[in-house]
Amino acid sequence: MKILCLNGPNLNRLGKREPAIYGSETLEDVQQTLITYGEQSNVQVECKQSNHEGDLIDWLHLAEDTEIKGIIFNPGAYTHTSYAIRDAIASISIPVIEVHISNIHSRESFRHQSVLAAVCVGQICGLGTFGYTLALETFLHRRKGES
Amino acid sequence: MKILCLNGPNLNRLGKREPAIYGSETLEDVQQTLITYGEQSNVQVECKQSNHEGDLIDWLHLAEDTEIKGIIFNPGAYTHTSYAIRDAIASISIPVIEVHISNIHSRESFRHQSVLAAVCVGQICGLGTFGYTLALETFLHRRKGES
Amino acid sequence: MKILCLNGPNLNRLGKREPAIYGSETLEDVQQTLITYGEQSNVQVECKQSNHEGDLIDWLHLAEDTEIKGIIFNPGAYTHTSYAIRDAIASISIPVIEVHISNIHSRESFRHQSVLAAVCVGQICGLGTFGYTLALETFLHRRKGES
Amino acid sequence: MKILCLNGPNLNRLGKREPAIYGSETLEDVQQTLITYGEQSNVQVECKQSNHEGDLIDWLHLAEDTEIKGIIFNPGAYTHTSYAIRDAIASISIPVIEVHISNIHSRESFRHQSVLAAVCVGQICGLGTFGYTLALETFLHRRKGES
Amino acid sequence: MKILCLNGPNLNRLGKREPAIYGSETLEDVQQTLITYGEQSNVQVECKQSNHEGDLIDWLHLAEDTEIKGIIFNPGAYTHTSYAIRDAIASISIPVIEVHISNIHSRESFRHQSVLAAVCVGQICGLGTFGYTLALETFLHRRKGES
Amino acid sequence: MKILCLNGPNLNRLGKREPAIYGSETLEDVQQTLITYGEQSNVQVECKQSNHEGDLIDWLHLAEDTEIKGIIFNPGAYTHTSYAIRDAIASISIPVIEVHISNIHSRESFRHQSVLAAVCVGQICGLGTFGYTLALETFLHRRKGES
Amino acid sequence: MKILCLNGPNLNRLGKREPAIYGSETLEDVQQTLITYGEQSNVQVECKQSNHEGDLIDWLHLAEDTEIKGIIFNPGAYTHTSYAIRDAIASISIPVIEVHISNIHSRESFRHQSVLAAVCVGQICGLGTFGYTLALETFLHRRKGES
Amino acid sequence: MKILCLNGPNLNRLGKREPAIYGSETLEDVQQTLITYGEQSNVQVECKQSNHEGDLIDWLHLAEDTEIKGIIFNPGAYTHTSYAIRDAIASISIPVIEVHISNIHSRESFRHQSVLAAVCVGQICGLGTFGYTLALETFLHRRKGES
Amino acid sequence: MKILCLNGPNLNRLGKREPAIYGSETLEDVQQTLITYGEQSNVQVECKQSNHEGDLIDWLHLAEDTEIKGIIFNPGAYTHTSYAIRDAIASISIPVIEVHISNIHSRESFRHQSVLAAVCVGQICGLGTFGYTLALETFLHRRKGES
Amino acid sequence: MKILCLNGPNLNRLGKREPAIYGSETLEDVQQTLITYGEQSNVQVECKQSNHEGDLIDWLHLAEDTEIKGIIFNPGAYTHTSYAIRDAIASISIPVIEVHISNIHSRESFRHQSVLAAVCVGQICGLGTFGYTLALETFLHRRKGES
Amino acid sequence: MKILCLNGPNLNRLGKREPAIYGSETLEDVQQTLITYGEQSNVQVECKQSNHEGDLIDWLHLAEDTEIKGIIFNPGAYTHTSYAIRDAIASISIPVIEVHISNIHSRESFRHQSVLAAVCVGQICGLGTFGYTLALETFLHRRKGES
Amino acid sequence: MKILCLNGPNLNRLGKREPAIYGSETLEDVQQTLITYGEQSNVQVECKQSNHEGDLIDWLHLAEDTEIKGIIFNPGAYTHTSYAIRDAIASISIPVIEVHISNIHSRESFRHQSVLAAVCVGQICGLGTFGYTLALETFLHRRKGES
Repeated sequence: MKILCLNGPNLNRLGKREPAIYGSETLEDVQQTLITYGEQSNVQVECKQSNHEGDLIDWLHLAEDTEIKGIIFNPGAYTHTSYAIRDAIASISIPVIEVHISNIHSRESFRHQSVLAAVCVGQICGLGTFGYTLALETFLHRRKGES
Repeated sequence: MKILCLNGPNLNRLGKREPAIYGSETLEDVQQTLITYGEQSNVQVECKQSNHEGDLIDWLHLAEDTEIKGIIFNPGAYTHTSYAIRDAIASISIPVIEVHISNIHSRESFRHQSVLAAVCVGQICGLGTFGYTLALETFLHRRKGES
Repeated sequence: MKILCLNGPNLNRLGKREPAIYGSETLEDVQQTLITYGEQSNVQVECKQSNHEGDLIDWLHLAEDTEIKGIIFNPGAYTHTSYAIRDAIASISIPVIEVHISNIHSRESFRHQSVLAAVCVGQICGLGTFGYTLALETFLHRRKGES
Repeated sequence: MKILCLNGPNLNRLGKREPAIYGSETLEDVQQTLITYGEQSNVQVECKQSNHEGDLIDWLHLAEDTEIKGIIFNPGAYTHTSYAIRDAIASISIPVIEVHISNIHSRESFRHQSVLAAVCVGQICGLGTFGYTLALETFLHRRKGES
Repeated sequence: MKILCLNGPNLNRLGKREPAIYGSETLEDVQQTLITYGEQSNVQVECKQSNHEGDLIDWLHLAEDTEIKGIIFNPGAYTHTSYAIRDAIASISIPVIEVHISNIHSRESFRHQSVLAAVCVGQICGLGTFGYTLALETFLHRRKGES
Repeated sequence: MKILCLNGPNLNRLGKREPAIYGSETLEDVQQTLITYGEQSNVQVECKQSNHEGDLIDWLHLAEDTEIKGIIFNPGAYTHTSYAIRDAIASISIPVIEVHISNIHSRESFRHQSVLAAVCVGQICGLGTFGYTLALETFLHRRKGES
Repeated sequence: MKILCLNGPNLNRLGKREPAIYGSETLEDVQQTLITYGEQSNVQVECKQSNHEGDLIDWLHLAEDTEIKGIIFNPGAYTHTSYAIRDAIASISIPVIEVHISNIHSRESFRHQSVLAAVCVGQICGLGTFGYTLALETFLHRRKGES
Repeated sequence: MKILCLNGPNLNRLGKREPAIYGSETLEDVQQTLITYGEQSNVQVECKQSNHEGDLIDWLHLAEDTEIKGIIFNPGAYTHTSYAIRDAIASISIPVIEVHISNIHSRESFRHQSVLAAVCVGQICGLGTFGYTLALETFLHRRKGES
Repeated sequence: MKILCLNGPNLNRLGKREPAIYGSETLEDVQQTLITYGEQSNVQVECKQSNHEGDLIDWLHLAEDTEIKGIIFNPGAYTHTSYAIRDAIASISIPVIEVHISNIHSRESFRHQSVLAAVCVGQICGLGTFGYTLALETFLHRRKGES
Repeated sequence: MKILCLNGPNLNRLGKREPAIYGSETLEDVQQTLITYGEQSNVQVECKQSNHEGDLIDWLHLAEDTEIKGIIFNPGAYTHTSYAIRDAIASISIPVIEVHISNIHSRESFRHQSVLAAVCVGQICGLGTFGYTLALETFLHRRKGES
Repeated sequence: MKILCLNGPNLNRLGKREPAIYGSETLEDVQQTLITYGEQSNVQVECKQSNHEGDLIDWLHLAEDTEIKGIIFNPGAYTHTSYAIRDAIASISIPVIEVHISNIHSRESFRHQSVLAAVCVGQICGLGTFGYTLALETFLHRRKGES
Repeated sequence: MKILCLNGPNLNRLGKREPAIYGSETLEDVQQTLITYGEQSNVQVECKQSNHEGDLIDWLHLAEDTEIKGIIFNPGAYTHTSYAIRDAIASISIPVIEVHISNIHSRESFRHQSVLAAVCVGQICGLGTFGYTLALETFLHRRKGES
């Protein structure tokens, strides 16, 4: 089993950017934690980041033709506006879990709405970078049997 | 360590009500899973349910004076309207994680907004009853160190 | 056959409250009329009233496990805000007819919208307390054959 | 006593049009049921239908100068937009009861609002074609004494 | 010179309908006053009324091919919704003055907006049936020279 | 009989400002026309203009204690925002007719709404400076009898 | 095969009305072009126009009982408001293609929304009177096999 | 004379909850101040608090049948949503004064609107717990003579 | 200690204007009551009124450089629109209490919102002219200690 | 003559993605049909697709400096949000026709609005992949003369 | 060449008012800087301030009849509401540049919109009091040639 | 000191695109003017343009690790929609000044709002390409001492 972890715009600056909101862990730290966690369950976690909306769409499409069984996706600010990414998620059969590090509901009002959530399996927000681990665990749990 | 699992209106009908949306597990099943899971980590999970907004507020207040260290809360439809529950959460110092079994973002539009989310630590939705387990795990993870 | 007649907040003050809007019949009068009318058709009408949203939800749930075949429901001001009652109606299989004594469309604008109507079978409003009788008659008519 | 039953646009296609929503009875069936029901109470029911907004207004005006004592009115889609019909109802002294066969509150959002309801006596919706009979019964009941 | 005075839905009931709002003069009275007033200035005033939106559109079109030099138009409730009448006014070269007997701004909010006003020359409202005379006078004044 | 003609902000620039919209007559021209017209009917017309909202309110109050029997009022851009002027008009018993030279409905959307119209007798707009004369005529007409 | 071409309000003035927007071809020209084009493919094109909303509804109903296989419909300004026409289209099984001569999206904002589009097969706008031909061609193409 | 002081949800946590907003006085302190203040004027002040919307409605009804002459009411967060409490206030003849400890207008936007204010006599907010005393004083003042 | 009592537009007409809403006391009566009440507590009350927004701003600024310790302010209709007055209040350090004689929440909807409330200490409304006295009392109470 | 056919995000998945909505033809099929159709009229059709908003803008700019005489553009989900693409279309002189395969008006509400339509020549939607052919035909027709 | 620098309400309190937002320079400092800067380029800068909307309108009008060639205008809070000032700017031919010291877009939402901006040449905001100098420099630059 | 001048979508077409709005200077002209102006003050100006949102984000990030001390940014149409660029600006410590060549407030309504303005230092709009120079000057001025 292979899981894709996709990060959108500005997440490359994690740990460097507004630590009061996002903490001091870097994206590399987060990705390494996920890879290690996956290895313990014999799952390969592939990690990608881009600030380009088009790259994220391309990668969602590409996943469809691989053995990837689940996608952990933090779409950054494209969460709130990108119907193109929404269509990309809807156009593939792999389940996607949306993750936000901060609690988007206690920040600016434009962050309260996700145009992607309706086509994802579910959403985890506000639980820090541990949210990525919880998403991974959900895919492991589903492999065992349950929805 | 003690964790409170609070369920709001109509969740007593889980497993009996609209199984296409909520699955066939009953609330008792979910609560038992949580209690068992907690025991493995030496954590006591206390479970309560009510259809009365006032009961939920009373219980949130009561928790403050106990050794409860975290609250897993599925507020049902009060999620979308109850500023009184919001004030109750804000009036206590115990962290609350909001859980929704279904993906509230792919249902009726009135379910898309939570008036509670801004005063909770975070939110998990759409991951089925496994969301309760993930919330519990978050409190265990936080006990160990940090998010 | 058994029919439940449920009345929500402030309807206990019927006949005493704003008679220009609601008339001078008391709730007891209305309930007695319904019971008598039902007896003529060999139908038992059970009547309940509460100002507590939670009571109304509890009673809707309880009805499901009885021989009740229809619910006549005047939800009072919870009509306009209670998604929790909406979920309760949706979670049971018994048909519910919403009744309003006054014409809610010619009063304050907040009374124009019912958040419950979409999950009820239908709605009768503005026809005075005779609306309860019409709702009962609809259940009798349906028993005979038709929708 | 004479009662007018007025049907608006597309109701001539009842029974032929979208039976999942409107049932398989034709308008002629409904009208015959009403006429027969009226005869039992010595009431003459006159039935008219038009797709023209202007015809409906003309007929409402004409009724004023006759012995018609009540109007049962299903305005079809003009319900949601015709302030001209609203003015026509307001300009006459005969009470009008608005009837909708389907539950307009569980359909498209543009059907949720009636611009006519505020000037009608009351509204019955979602109870199928039996709603016409209930409206007739209300006029009979009122003749006996009560509002 | 010839002037057309057009009245829309329900104005045939003027004097009979809601006299508190519209006064006790009938439409015939108003029309006769205009005709007499016109004769004094050697102007022929032609008067028409219909409850049918289509008739009003037809008559606006027909006017274009006659010697009519101005239209006094009280569109009744079509004022607030009829883009078809708006297009008809825009499609002809004859100037149109919109007249309302009552002060539409101190009545229900749906009466505050006119979708026709933008394509008319101007609007007179709230000055009773004398508003028709003022409109006529404006056309006479314009014939003399100026706007 | 005495009539007050009140002009609000920027009307002192009439004839100098945007002639495409407001024409080339100056405010002095308009005022002189009104005074002359009034003299023919033995009516004294008093004319005032100010760019200060407070002056307009003061003058409306002052009129109440004089023999002024009607006010012709072009409130300029205060039309759209000044609830203080609205209260001033409501606080006096003299009838006020609102006049606009241009057709406010075919200009920017913020000009479509008048917060004053509801407390005025009526409104004339789009008929050029002749609108002032029509307002004066309405007061003369009313003196003779009634509308 | 027979195709119906239906034109709504004010299209009888095509070529005479606002040529900057609608061009100088008359409705008769357009209809003749369609009939000729149809004849080449052995298809009979029937053409009708009315300013009356009710006529358009009647004609849509009538088509259902004929051999008409497709309807080309320019509903004029009823496009933006007529839920009655929407219901009429939904009540018949013949496919309808909505055509607008001008680009409704670059005109006044009230023209941007079509309440009919959702129940039509599709929409062509802004391509001038050639849009009618394209609609006809679509029906011809569909006869051959595909959608 | 007897005055009822009613406090809604979360006010039992006064002094414990968010002292930066609500101060450090407890509800018991506030109630004792009121009782003492009342005794000086020979007025009995009865104090109640509940987190249950239904309790507050029940108590408002009960007051009607007692010698209570005024109600001081801090409805907490039910201020912003409870039309059921609004109806309860409207259904009794005892005057109610709404009190808020904090300035609801300088907090979150959902706190800016009170759905109860329109049926209360008046509202005092932002003056701290002294607002309760001012409300009591108003009832004392009214007893003496004036409104 | 010195207190400033500031009244905005149209309050000079108190007692003369709409007595059903504002009572029959004049502004002079109200001011005299305040002055007398203040003298009893050794506080000088200075009273000013203007219909000019600019005057009110000037006076707020001027107060800052005097020994004035509190401002009682009824801003009349400027309450709902004047961000300039809001800025003036925010620019001074003297506490301001907003007073409205009538219950602004049970009147026209444009009166429900105060753009000033957020920068005032608090608001008293609907308690008649006694509201001014309550505001004064609050300043006296605060002098003694704290709220 | 050369025509550019531009396809935006997710259209590379045509035929693979949601066939219930978009059919089973692939983008390559559609492009080949267009190229063949063009060859019959001696027109070269160039086809491009990208998921990157920037690529689409770049290509629109590049077209300006070539012999391309028309652009057939299906912008995918960028239709609803990309003002940058709108500016790109406005910045070139080549006419653009917007094509949508599905009927965007009968899908989710966010698809009902196109921010590009106002700067395109026209729009074709809901006619399946045949819509591309109709757009091409329009350019051929225009070459012959005019619309 | 002469330039007018106009400041609106509360700017007389610059340096004294909310220094965290507006800095500690006084209005006199700012005006002196501008005058000195102008002298270096042989330009006379005239400075005025008022809290009265009417004064600002009067001064804009007066400028038209002088040798003033440009106006630097900080309208304070009138920016957001004064259509009367907007009309005054539109009624003169002198170019106006709107200046705001603070970044109005990062403050309260009511400050985000300027009703004046559309009739000004341009706007500078958030650059502190240096914004006035930049506006002056723009007028100097324009004198030299063009933008 | 080094300054970055960043231009977003379609600005590469400056001078070629809609000269009535944007003038005839090309982007190269503007950039050369800035570079020359900078050299006079010993400041190096680096210029970049892209139509790709992702490129702009990448470049903002890259700037953070260089000696760039200020960014002059014209984000083109991304101004109105790109929360991703907003986050990028917020994630770096370099001050950004937003520049628009045209007056965005007198164009289409979608151009009135900038989602970036709140995280920029300030904004200059409507002053033509001279706005870039003013932004540069602001950075030079700040280097000297003041904000």
